[in-house]
Amino acid sequence: MPASAADSAIYRNLFSDDATAALFSDSAEIRAMLLVEGMLARVQGELGLIPETAAAYIERASRETQIDPSALAAETATNGVPIPALVAAFRKEMKAPEYAQFLHWGATSQDIMETGLALRLRRVTEIWDERLGALVATLGKLAAAHADLPMAARTYGQAATPTSFGALVSGWGHPLLRHRARLAALRPELATVSLGGAAGTLSAMGPEGPAVRAGLAKALGLSDPGHSWHAERDRIGAFSAWMAGLMASLGKIGEDLILMTQSGIDEIRLEGAGGSSTMPQKQNPVGPSVLVALARHSVALASAMQGAGLHRQQRDGSAWFVEWLSLPQLCISTGRALALAEQVIASLSPDADAMARNLNAGGGLIHAEALSFALARHMPRPEAQARIKELCAEAIRAGGSLPDLVRRDFPDLDLAIGSLGTAPSEARDFAAQAAV
Amino acid sequence: MPASAADSAIYRNLFSDDATAALFSDSAEIRAMLLVEGMLARVQGELGLIPETAAAYIERASRETQIDPSALAAETATNGVPIPALVAAFRKEMKAPEYAQFLHWGATSQDIMETGLALRLRRVTEIWDERLGALVATLGKLAAAHADLPMAARTYGQAATPTSFGALVSGWGHPLLRHRARLAALRPELATVSLGGAAGTLSAMGPEGPAVRAGLAKALGLSDPGHSWHAERDRIGAFSAWMAGLMASLGKIGEDLILMTQSGIDEIRLEGAGGSSTMPQKQNPVGPSVLVALARHSVALASAMQGAGLHRQQRDGSAWFVEWLSLPQLCISTGRALALAEQVIASLSPDADAMARNLNAGGGLIHAEALSFALARHMPRPEAQARIKELCAEAIRAGGSLPDLVRRDFPDLDLAIGSLGTAPSEARDFAAQAAV
Amino acid sequence: MPASAADSAIYRNLFSDDATAALFSDSAEIRAMLLVEGMLARVQGELGLIPETAAAYIERASRETQIDPSALAAETATNGVPIPALVAAFRKEMKAPEYAQFLHWGATSQDIMETGLALRLRRVTEIWDERLGALVATLGKLAAAHADLPMAARTYGQAATPTSFGALVSGWGHPLLRHRARLAALRPELATVSLGGAAGTLSAMGPEGPAVRAGLAKALGLSDPGHSWHAERDRIGAFSAWMAGLMASLGKIGEDLILMTQSGIDEIRLEGAGGSSTMPQKQNPVGPSVLVALARHSVALASAMQGAGLHRQQRDGSAWFVEWLSLPQLCISTGRALALAEQVIASLSPDADAMARNLNAGGGLIHAEALSFALARHMPRPEAQARIKELCAEAIRAGGSLPDLVRRDFPDLDLAIGSLGTAPSEARDFAAQAAV
Amino acid sequence: MPASAADSAIYRNLFSDDATAALFSDSAEIRAMLLVEGMLARVQGELGLIPETAAAYIERASRETQIDPSALAAETATNGVPIPALVAAFRKEMKAPEYAQFLHWGATSQDIMETGLALRLRRVTEIWDERLGALVATLGKLAAAHADLPMAARTYGQAATPTSFGALVSGWGHPLLRHRARLAALRPELATVSLGGAAGTLSAMGPEGPAVRAGLAKALGLSDPGHSWHAERDRIGAFSAWMAGLMASLGKIGEDLILMTQSGIDEIRLEGAGGSSTMPQKQNPVGPSVLVALARHSVALASAMQGAGLHRQQRDGSAWFVEWLSLPQLCISTGRALALAEQVIASLSPDADAMARNLNAGGGLIHAEALSFALARHMPRPEAQARIKELCAEAIRAGGSLPDLVRRDFPDLDLAIGSLGTAPSEARDFAAQAAV
Repeated sequence: MPASAADSAIYRNLFSDDATAALFSDSAEIRAMLLVEGMLARVQGELGLIPETAAAYIERASRETQIDPSALAAETATNGVPIPALVAAFRKEMKAPEYAQFLHWGATSQDIMETGLALRLRRVTEIWDERLGALVATLGKLAAAHADLPMAARTYGQAATPTSFGALVSGWGHPLLRHRARLAALRPELATVSLGGAAGTLSAMGPEGPAVRAGLAKALGLSDPGHSWHAERDRIGAFSAWMAGLMASLGKIGEDLILMTQSGIDEIRLEGAGGSSTMPQKQNPVGPSVLVALARHSVALASAMQGAGLHRQQRDGSAWFVEWLSLPQLCISTGRALALAEQVIASLSPDADAMARNLNAGGGLIHAEALSFALARHMPRPEAQARIKELCAEAIRAGGSLPDLVRRDFPDLDLAIGSLGTAPSEARDFAAQAAV
Repeated sequence: MPASAADSAIYRNLFSDDATAALFSDSAEIRAMLLVEGMLARVQGELGLIPETAAAYIERASRETQIDPSALAAETATNGVPIPALVAAFRKEMKAPEYAQFLHWGATSQDIMETGLALRLRRVTEIWDERLGALVATLGKLAAAHADLPMAARTYGQAATPTSFGALVSGWGHPLLRHRARLAALRPELATVSLGGAAGTLSAMGPEGPAVRAGLAKALGLSDPGHSWHAERDRIGAFSAWMAGLMASLGKIGEDLILMTQSGIDEIRLEGAGGSSTMPQKQNPVGPSVLVALARHSVALASAMQGAGLHRQQRDGSAWFVEWLSLPQLCISTGRALALAEQVIASLSPDADAMARNLNAGGGLIHAEALSFALARHMPRPEAQARIKELCAEAIRAGGSLPDLVRRDFPDLDLAIGSLGTAPSEARDFAAQAAV
Repeated sequence: MPASAADSAIYRNLFSDDATAALFSDSAEIRAMLLVEGMLARVQGELGLIPETAAAYIERASRETQIDPSALAAETATNGVPIPALVAAFRKEMKAPEYAQFLHWGATSQDIMETGLALRLRRVTEIWDERLGALVATLGKLAAAHADLPMAARTYGQAATPTSFGALVSGWGHPLLRHRARLAALRPELATVSLGGAAGTLSAMGPEGPAVRAGLAKALGLSDPGHSWHAERDRIGAFSAWMAGLMASLGKIGEDLILMTQSGIDEIRLEGAGGSSTMPQKQNPVGPSVLVALARHSVALASAMQGAGLHRQQRDGSAWFVEWLSLPQLCISTGRALALAEQVIASLSPDADAMARNLNAGGGLIHAEALSFALARHMPRPEAQARIKELCAEAIRAGGSLPDLVRRDFPDLDLAIGSLGTAPSEARDFAAQAAV
Repeated sequence: MPASAADSAIYRNLFSDDATAALFSDSAEIRAMLLVEGMLARVQGELGLIPETAAAYIERASRETQIDPSALAAETATNGVPIPALVAAFRKEMKAPEYAQFLHWGATSQDIMETGLALRLRRVTEIWDERLGALVATLGKLAAAHADLPMAARTYGQAATPTSFGALVSGWGHPLLRHRARLAALRPELATVSLGGAAGTLSAMGPEGPAVRAGLAKALGLSDPGHSWHAERDRIGAFSAWMAGLMASLGKIGEDLILMTQSGIDEIRLEGAGGSSTMPQKQNPVGPSVLVALARHSVALASAMQGAGLHRQQRDGSAWFVEWLSLPQLCISTGRALALAEQVIASLSPDADAMARNLNAGGGLIHAEALSFALARHMPRPEAQARIKELCAEAIRAGGSLPDLVRRDFPDLDLAIGSLGTAPSEARDFAAQAAV
């Protein structure tokens, strides 16, 4: 009974991403939490907090036990957290109460859940980093291939000046290079162990508390923050904001593609575009539209995550629940958007003829700036601009060509139109950066 | 692989609502869409657009056919809508191509999906209306029962003046009365048929188009808007905003309960409060915290829905997808919050002793306003306020009781403190309104 | 030092609206609050709570006194509300302490501020209602004038089927008709007096409290809610959501205009479009872009307003402050968007030639649905769709015209293309509704 | 006519920040834009794009000219950008048309505005960095001073286990250390020159374009991105997200203080707390409430900024306008929150007696976890937990003390309660980090 389209059997392929979703499945969550409980016991055994035999038994069991997610549902609804039910179920499964009593020794629910989440996010972000790398590389090749392909740059939807398709692509790619660098800075923050005990003082572990935390971090390959951080939500907030920022950049690609595939513009063709239930001709830019939608939705979810940073006192159930409601969806959408962007980019081909047609349409008004600078070599620039503006008006009124009108009035002028300026070199520069 | 905690086997009981979720299941969605296709055929048969035998066959089949949701996934991912796949699967299931060809005659995906959604939302909002009624009635009884129970009103968390618990409860209930009235105004808007054909002109149905729409509306018990409205998103936007508004009002109840159950305040006791994995004493206000969390999350989702109102041209896939990503979650959260609020209210009991203790704590400073007015009968009010303010300061500094200090300085003054003012009558008035 | 572009001398004309902003000026706020204090005194005088001579004096002074807004700044920063400073300044200005002491008798800051706001919003929404009426009327005339003007309907930016410009305009207008009806339902809710005293019990007014509230409501032409509602934020939340919904509908007009004015589409011409600092030819759709921007910004602000509905206990300074930070901007943007929409609509003219050109471009693929239905009269519809789909592909591949290809293969077929379906009648129906 | 409370003469001291607002004033914006125009001319003169005498004249004039902001309003409203009006006004002021024609040579509005913004944000973020440093240092001292001051940690508002006030403070401070580090990473990104010309190709500058950009960057002390980035909004998006994250962390401090100053909790006293217009005793936590409100409002604004990352094509007026509507308010709120947080922290004093009272209240249930671990040394832990849970219930029912009940049932047990665990050392560790 899906609350999320990503969980729907009908819509899953449109909105979900298997690799990311796998890490947010109920079983993956339970698996990660059991792993943390097992490692916690091992470390506590090594440090003498609990008997080593119990520790060994718990750790081994933590790898082997299967817990049915739905068996935790009723008690989770009462307690607000699944850990009491999980610990009870695990203890029962262990069938060794003399050892099982040492499970979850001195930890609190949030320790186990968030350390488990850290493990899963480490893997999730690793997958995404690879995808980002591949996407940037694909964009780099596309930019290089079309570094010199002329097209009309548009501001406010209006033809502005000539540019190249490669330069447009490089404008898609640059933010991704930076998002990737930001992710690299974020990842270690996310890969942080949480161990604070009931309310952040680790008091049930006695003086060994910090050593347990350090040992657990080491055992799991996470970093030890050196203190409890249950109520410090800035890291997950920054991660959410990063996702929203990435999604906005991917959504921008989607928006551009929707505009460029418009009937009458036709500058981009997408393989495998979507069909209609009633219009045989339709080739809808479904992928780009999904990118835009995921971006808008994710920006809203990320604002919920940031708001959850107002986390009261040592633990704020309401703020924490907001994260649970928002984060998995946000991550799965991010995973989907990355995979889909790669797929969309791979399926697109620019139509050089259509680009040329659009560039030359509209009476060549797109060359107005270039012509005004050409003319400004022979008269003051404000005057040149005014003259060209008049000729633009004439061209629109009479339907003529601006360059022709300029030639008529200034027969000796070197028009010098059609320059792509820095567009080709910018495209190549990006390609070079993307290839690293 | 849940993107939503409401879809998780672990967390479902905490965040989902069976009755609402049932109407957003894949099978409920398919069932509703088939019903619309069946009724469309019947109406078109009656009007002579398609053969009556075909119409009858299609309608019957629409009630009997089972379509596997996951069989639609691949094609839905390509087309962005499930209808082409659904129509193809349905046609195939019918095993009567001579009739099946008349299925989905002149309609577009959005017609079928949104009319199906209208049917489901009609039922969903009916359930909620009943819940709202029951919740208001429960609050009415609570307000009446405790109309005269004194407690400290708080502004900025500070004891302000005495009020009654019943008055507080009536403040929870009044917005719900209004939300219910707003829902009554919204429901007919939502229960509107959508039939516009490919791009809103019904051209494939010829001159009978409007009659088909009217007939379909009648057959389904929906209203006929008299025109196509694919790109008019104000109704679903207003509905989403209504949910956010309702959730905020329920979240406010949650916030108040979290504050009133605090250790050291203890004015409310909740049966069945949540336990901790490590602290045996904990009775956490889990239900109230969930109400707050659902409210915060829903406000964010509703903003995504409102943003999707910027729906471009005759159909904007990206804006529409945002609705798909947001609406089911929003509805399921609303259903959950309504059920949970009722459950939380039913489980609470006010602690009159604790309320009295808090009312009298703090040296009786809560009576400062009343005392200033009592004194103002004997001197100018600014002077009276200033005198009381000085005595407040003395009471804080020396730890004494403000009323005692006033008695010391003004032995003949009739202190007239402890009035609950309009609180009891407001509680009873609300109870009377809630009982209707 | 503007935090808001609407408050900037540079950007004011772009983003602000004089008529709305005038009601949110510091002096308008002070004026409204003084008016409420004056009326409160008068009513309390009539009911014998305060001396009638004092009441008369206060009321008269409330109309005549000028309070310098900046004189309230320091104390407002300390208290979080301007009323203590306002009352002190007013008392001082009155130069009659024997009367002045009866000012603000038993009221609290929120009573005065929110009743003052109700007065201002009553006027603001009256202005908007007129604007909405005028805008709808203008759209009605536009729809009527172009009810039969053919253009390509677009879904996903792709040519879908023919429609008429009048039908598009009616799609802009219908939501506005509904928003106007919603506003009519909201206005009485907003025009509600607030009088609850310190914490909602009116205790300082004794048994006369409810009579004072009723009298104040009557004197100000507001409604008496019959109870205190300081912490009930659903009305202002619903109003904010209404603004967001309206803005989304206006933003949709902006989006459509941006798309229709695109170079190469050119279906709409806007008088007075914006120029560039360097491109002489540019005619940027500035107005439509502002409509979109105001909509996006307002949706975000409205979500802050809805979130402020989680208002804790009897008064929650933090939640209330969020409203102060959001509401004036939201209202001024709404006023601006309404004025701008009217201005943009009045300045646009459709280009019938461009519309015809776009309709016939792309090899007539836009007629594919109509052709498939024409063909379906002679063969099963799935087969007809498949045949037309093949011919679409051929037309795209070979650059031919779909209708020609159909004629080639089915020489006897009555093509029956170009129907606008219900578009013209929908446009006229809307015009008729808009004229009421 | 303030749309923003920060621009109101009444509310300015509550919501604005002089140092930040000064950099967003109309005159500061004009000053920065003129500076960029002047430096652009100088660099172009050096590179021979424009005559050196003209360049020198323009640069000098750019430092001396005064432009009246309101003189730009009308034209800005038409063009959507102030640069055409600014350039015209500047040219007129220069009274040297032969030089003035070389002003703004080959640049576009966005180049000038965003490079000007970069200059202002560099200064703004420098101020904030200092404030963050001072705030962290203040928190460090507070944490050190109260590292051992016992208080009740609370989860869900419920007493959980003992902690220390210093540990709470360190939990406020750690995120600020990280936010400061994030700001250090962001600042160079923000301090980036923008020079792309009309649509990002610098074509009007010929082959010298990149050299002009590099020269301009050097002259202004900004970095040269090596390409045009008009439509790459990730940097401003990341900056906005950073502000939202910081604000959430400061809002968390506000929330904690509101809870700790509650009547009946009284653990914190704030000097200079706010007064009421009718309640003489009130000492409202106004500052903390403002922190919370600014945080909630800023999170909403930041989501508008992130959404504006879906910036279409080479320039998207609507997306860019959203930034103009959001960014100044976001920055001024951030500046205010930083200043206010420092002020609030400096004005607070913990009440050790109240903390001790709350710690020992509630029958000592807060020691339940510690007692369960003490008991677990003598019996299996699940049994120990169950026994303590029973005694908790008895203590609640009968009103006794949990430690006493434990002593009664287990007279030989070493209770070992009251440990602050790692709280003191965490407080000191933070103090050490904060002192760097």
